[in-house]
Formats: sequence, C-alpha cells, structure tokens
Amino acid sequence: MKILLKNATLLPEYGFAGRRVSVLVRDRKIAGVTEQPPPTPADEVIDCGGDLLIPAFYNAHCHAAMTLFRGYGEDLPLQRWLEEKIFPAEERLNFRNVYHASMLAIAEMLRVGIASFSDMYMFEDAVAEAVLASGIKANLSRSLVSFDPEGDIAKEPRMTEAVRLAEWYHGCDDGRILVDFSLHAEYTNVPRACAYVAEVASRFRTGMQIHLSETEKEHRECLARRGQTPTAFFRDTGVLDCPTCAAHGVWLTDEDIAILAEKKASVAHNPVSNLKLGSGVMPLGRLLDAGVNVALGTDGAASNNRLDILRELQAAALIHKGVNRDTSQAPARTLFGLATRGGALAQRRPDCGRVEPGFRADLVLLDRNALHNIPCYDEYAMLAYSAEAADVRMTMVDGRILYRNGEYTSIDEERVRAEFRAALAHDFA
Amino acid sequence: MKILLKNATLLPEYGFAGRRVSVLVRDRKIAGVTEQPPPTPADEVIDCGGDLLIPAFYNAHCHAAMTLFRGYGEDLPLQRWLEEKIFPAEERLNFRNVYHASMLAIAEMLRVGIASFSDMYMFEDAVAEAVLASGIKANLSRSLVSFDPEGDIAKEPRMTEAVRLAEWYHGCDDGRILVDFSLHAEYTNVPRACAYVAEVASRFRTGMQIHLSETEKEHRECLARRGQTPTAFFRDTGVLDCPTCAAHGVWLTDEDIAILAEKKASVAHNPVSNLKLGSGVMPLGRLLDAGVNVALGTDGAASNNRLDILRELQAAALIHKGVNRDTSQAPARTLFGLATRGGALAQRRPDCGRVEPGFRADLVLLDRNALHNIPCYDEYAMLAYSAEAADVRMTMVDGRILYRNGEYTSIDEERVRAEFRAALAHDFA
Repeated sequence: MKILLKNATLLPEYGFAGRRVSVLVRDRKIAGVTEQPPPTPADEVIDCGGDLLIPAFYNAHCHAAMTLFRGYGEDLPLQRWLEEKIFPAEERLNFRNVYHASMLAIAEMLRVGIASFSDMYMFEDAVAEAVLASGIKANLSRSLVSFDPEGDIAKEPRMTEAVRLAEWYHGCDDGRILVDFSLHAEYTNVPRACAYVAEVASRFRTGMQIHLSETEKEHRECLARRGQTPTAFFRDTGVLDCPTCAAHGVWLTDEDIAILAEKKASVAHNPVSNLKLGSGVMPLGRLLDAGVNVALGTDGAASNNRLDILRELQAAALIHKGVNRDTSQAPARTLFGLATRGGALAQRRPDCGRVEPGFRADLVLLDRNALHNIPCYDEYAMLAYSAEAADVRMTMVDGRILYRNGEYTSIDEERVRAEFRAALAHDFA
Repeated sequence: MKILLKNATLLPEYGFAGRRVSVLVRDRKIAGVTEQPPPTPADEVIDCGGDLLIPAFYNAHCHAAMTLFRGYGEDLPLQRWLEEKIFPAEERLNFRNVYHASMLAIAEMLRVGIASFSDMYMFEDAVAEAVLASGIKANLSRSLVSFDPEGDIAKEPRMTEAVRLAEWYHGCDDGRILVDFSLHAEYTNVPRACAYVAEVASRFRTGMQIHLSETEKEHRECLARRGQTPTAFFRDTGVLDCPTCAAHGVWLTDEDIAILAEKKASVAHNPVSNLKLGSGVMPLGRLLDAGVNVALGTDGAASNNRLDILRELQAAALIHKGVNRDTSQAPARTLFGLATRGGALAQRRPDCGRVEPGFRADLVLLDRNALHNIPCYDEYAMLAYSAEAADVRMTMVDGRILYRNGEYTSIDEERVRAEFRAALAHDFA
C-alpha cells in the first residue's frame, strides 16, 4: 500500500523553506520526502493543499478508561476526590466498560492527532482489544500495588494479569502494542514487590511506567517513611534499571534529576492534571538542562478533563513562562519536540516522531488557514499558542489513515458513543 | 422578528433540571424562557436538539487589530518584544489595515461565542465600522498616552480622535457600540492628562479602560516614581471615579483591591497573556473575596495568541488551583460567571449576561454531544475543563444569529481572510 501526500508544508526543521513537499508512505513507513512528487504510482494520492504536515503526537501518560469519570466530583481536594468518588467508582470497572470507555478515549485522541498513548490501569486486556480494533498504537501496563512488605506479589492475581498482558500482547501487530510493567507509585508499593516486578520486566525486555513525585505530600511522606526520595527508592529497588517513563515529576530534587538522567529514564509532563489537582508546576527547565528525555501526557480524563496533547503543549508553553516570569522558558519548538519525538522515545519507539524516510508514518495534517492561525510568522508558535484540536484534518498511524476531515475510518463514532453511554448507565447508574 | 429556540438545555442555575426548554427571542431581547413552547408563532424556529444554551461570552480586554501581529517575535523578553517588534510595526497601522485586522478578530470571536469585546487601540473608528458591519457588540476606546507633565492633552490629535469617537459612535445601534475613554497605563501618562480625560469621560457619561499593575516592574517603578501604587495614582487623578475596567491587575496590594472595591471598578483578568508574557498570576481569590467585579479578557492576539474566552476560563480554572495548590480556588461555576455576567457588567451592560426574560439575546449554543464532553456530570466542569471553541454551534448577538454551524451570516469569511492578507502584504511586507 502506497499513499502519496502531496502539497504538504513541513516544519522549518525539515528544510524545504516555503516550498510544497511530497511525502510518500509505503505500508507502515515514510518512504520518501521530496520536493518533486515521486514518479512511482501510489494507491492513494492526498492533496494537502499547503496544510502543515507534522509528526503525530504521543501521549506518554494516560488512564484511557477514566473517560467514565470525566467531570466526576470536580473541584474537590485530591484525597476526598479519590476516596469519596474515584476509588468507589473504580470498584465497578469490568472488561466491558473499560473496553467501551477506552474506545471513546481512543476516538477522542485520534481526532486531536495522537498516534500512540501510554496506559496504566486495570482490565488492560480490554484496552488492548480497543487498541487493536481502532488502529491506534499504545504502551499498555497493568497498574500494580503492594502493601505487605513480606507478601509475594508473584502470587497476586493482578501480577498474573500483568504477565498475561505481556505474554499475549507485547509486540502485537508489528509493535503497534508494546506492553510495559507498571508500579503505581512509591507510596503504594513495598520494596520487595518493586524488585520482583523490575526483574519480570527485564525478563520480558520491556519498559516500566510509574507515578513519581506528583505531590509534595508524596515527596515528604516518602522522606519521612524511608529517609529517601521516591526517585532514590525506585533506583534502589532496581526499577530504574528498566527503561522507565515516570509520570509527573513535579517534586524532584536536583539529585533526583541527576538519577533520572543517569538511568536514562523519561519523564511524562502532565501540566493540565498537575494544575487541576493543585499538585504544582514541575521543574521543566532543570530536567531539560540535565538532559532528561521529557514527554507530554494527558493523565486520565478525570483529572484533565481532555485527552489532547496540543492542550498540554499549550499549557506547558504558558505555565513555565508565567510561573518563572521568564519568557525564555519552555520555547515553542522545544515543547513541540516533547509532544512528538520525546513521547516516541518515552515509549521506546525510536523509529517514530519525525517526518523522515525510514520513520513510521505517524502523521498529522493541520489546517494553517483557520482564522485563528493567521498570519503565521512562526509555525512552532502557531502550534504552541493558537492551533486547536479542530484544526487536525488527518491522523495517520503506522501508514493507515484513521481520521480524516471529521470522519473515522476504523471507528463508528455513533456506536462508540452509544456503547459508552450504555455501559455507563448499566454499571454506574 | 421572533426566533424560537426549542429543545435547549439550560445551566442548572436556571432551574429546569434535566428538562428541555424553549427560549423565545423577540427583536434584541429574550422574551420568554419556558418549558412548553409558547403558542405564538415565531419567524424562525431552531431545534437545539438538547444542546446547551448559555449566555454568550464577553471579552473585557482586547486589542482586536493586533491579529496583524499574532505570533510575531515569539518568546522574546517583554521589553525587547515591544521595542524591537511591536512598536515599529505599530507605526505602520492605518484605517484600512486596522479595519481588516479587526474583521478577522471579530470573525474569530464570533466563532467562539463572544458577543461583545472591549477594545483599546488606535484607529478605533476603523474598529467601529467593523463592529457595525459584523453585528458584534463592543466597548471601543482610543488608547491615550501623555508624557509632558505641563502639556495640554486637549490639544493632541489623539485626544481629538478619542472625543470624535465618542461623539460619532457612543450608543450607536441601540447601544451595540459603547465608547469608553482609555488611559493606556500609569507609566505612560501624567497626572494632568489623566484628570482631564477623566473629566471628559464624565461629561460623556461613559466608561474608562486602563492597563493596571500588569508587571512587577510597573508596580515597583510607580512606587519609586510617585510614592504610590498605580491604583492609588488612578484614584487620586479622578480616573476611578469613572466606571473603570482595569486590565490585568496582577500586582495589586490589598489596599489596591480595597480601592477598586470601593470605586466599584471591574478588573479584566487575562490569564493567558499574563502567563505568556511572564507577568505572573493575578490574585483572583483576593479580588473576589473583596467583592470586586472580575471579568475575563483575551488581550491582543500578539500576546495570547487566541481571542477565545473559553480558553481564558479554562486557563484560569487551572492556573489558580495549580499555583496556589488548592483545588477550591477558581471554581468552575464562578469562572463561568466572570466570563459572561462579569464581562457584561464590566462593559456597563446590565441587561446582558443571563438567559432570562428582559435580558439581551446574547446566546451561545454548545454541543454537549462531542466525544470530549461526555459523560457530563456537571455542565460547569464541562465548560471549564473540556469544551472547546469548535463546540460552539451558534452565536447570537442582540437577537441576531451571526454564526451557526460553521457559517457566518454577516461576514464573508473568505473575503475577510483575503482582505486581511492583502492588507498585511501591502503594509507589513
């Protein structure tokens, strides 16, 4: 299958200043990026009409099925929100409602140009089936907790689930699904279980997803409990020896940042969730200066309430300038790199996140002609400050067009909406 | 002219919980809000299909024609940005390019549900003509500066312009245009001119727009120069005796806030601009506690880069929680009030900003069915955290539908785009 995208505008970093470009997609990959259209015939030719062709976005931290709880218990303090609202509701999760909630999340993400998401939740086999059905990519992980210091997590059903997920789905469909292991957080795990899970993850040669230093409370209580920071705890239990993507990283010390850099961990920055839950503002500049790979994540819809990486990019562009009172913070082009290549690297997808031959064809076409996007002196500024989800005209994942001009090709939007509502009414009424 | 909006959903504050409602619009006003459709025939009947019918948004601080400079000189420090980029470019403004740039701004604002904007710039007669042609409402003001302590601003051409604007346009089309006077800021004006302009504004019985305490530098330098804060300066020069809308208010002391409350001034909160320019985060909670009327503004497109009050509402909902690390800050419902009724009051439009009989029919219909808006446990949370510009299905101003399902009724979008580009190429190439 060959698709030719002609008359595309690329970002300045790709050269071709001011010129229209042809991008040839062969099967899952970008085969060529040229000024003249290639002479070989394509199965489908798409005229981009000068629209901006960018690498797709990678959502490095999500709990997709939490679309069920979007807007549920708003503006409550974090602990009351979790204990009175979210935890009781999560008791009612099952394969069926997680599947339909994930399909809703996936449709929402495809519409805003997300090609791949990292997920960390329960009933991940349901999420995997939704990923396979929809054509999106994902790094899926079963979130693990452990409270008994002497307990054997190997015997826990949730560990069995996590292992089964890796056995069944890791590498599925030419790597469209990668399975990670996941330790929910330092405060929800004991050292023995962490060491065991890290060992299993190494055996599967896969990655690790964790929540790390999201709140000041977590940071302080860890210091009091263990005499070390959550980052040091995960280093000492061997977790950071796996390729790790740590979500949040709001309360990191300079020493923590040095550890993350040394261990080549990625940090998923979730600016909207961190603001909404009152967690604070993460030290983006210090992480970047230390050479840590930073990606962007949405977190779940319950704490955001959108699954839109462009919004995260825009929130990050504003918040770091505003809070540090320094307009040189969080430059637009740097942030765009986090939203694309940074996310691909955090997901261990080295052949993703660039519009270059040999890279996976994860591509987004964006309307440069919308009233709010003109004039355009600087494409990165357009992306960081004015573009919106509705400007996305096409989302292609692994060479397959999944969303175009308001229509899905792999998803029946009405059915997704109806089945989501039916599951919600059945299980959460 | 009678328009019946049937099968609308209203916000909880209007009662009618869970029921579909009919809103009858007669000429410029809301004539009835009832559960049963009224028996009288209407000229046009619109089935809202259960969509959310809300009061339109009021943009309490804007420089509309700065769409010309959207994305121009991004991520520069404020002073360099102003001195190297914006000020030289503003030398090239004229009636024609301000007109076309304002039309682009107005089209952008109508699409996102803004019924009225406050403007403060140059060539305001051009803005007035764009407002009249498009059907939007506005509070227009010619921005005034004065540097000679002994000078007579009455003899300055810009003062003549400001007076002429009031004479020609104040109250035009049944109050669709209101003219305000405007003192650019404390640091760009001398006391004598301020007192004179306040006196002229009183004579016209009109309002005042000012920039107030936007940056720490402004606040500190005013203290050093005058031994008082900008707020005290404007009080002592009589400016605050006019109905005043002060933009920004980032660096207000408790005493400043008490002065603003006593003088019944409004403050236009511009969260995106304040973050983007590194100005800081305004004390929203303290202003609200003191009973000051707060509205939301976008500022100009050069420092935002969008003219979208929903984005401001959402930025405010996040930033105050995140920076204060307190999820009880900036509740969704309160912020929605600022974006609507707060803005109407800041513009001295007491009959605007509510979906109630007798109020002006400034109404917005919003898609509740978009994937990112479901489920909806709380409509205010939907507005504060998940809704987006593209969800706006209809914008009605003074009883006239100006935007519906992606189409403008009073504006030729293609022509606006083409004329904007032609003016830009002609004057700023």
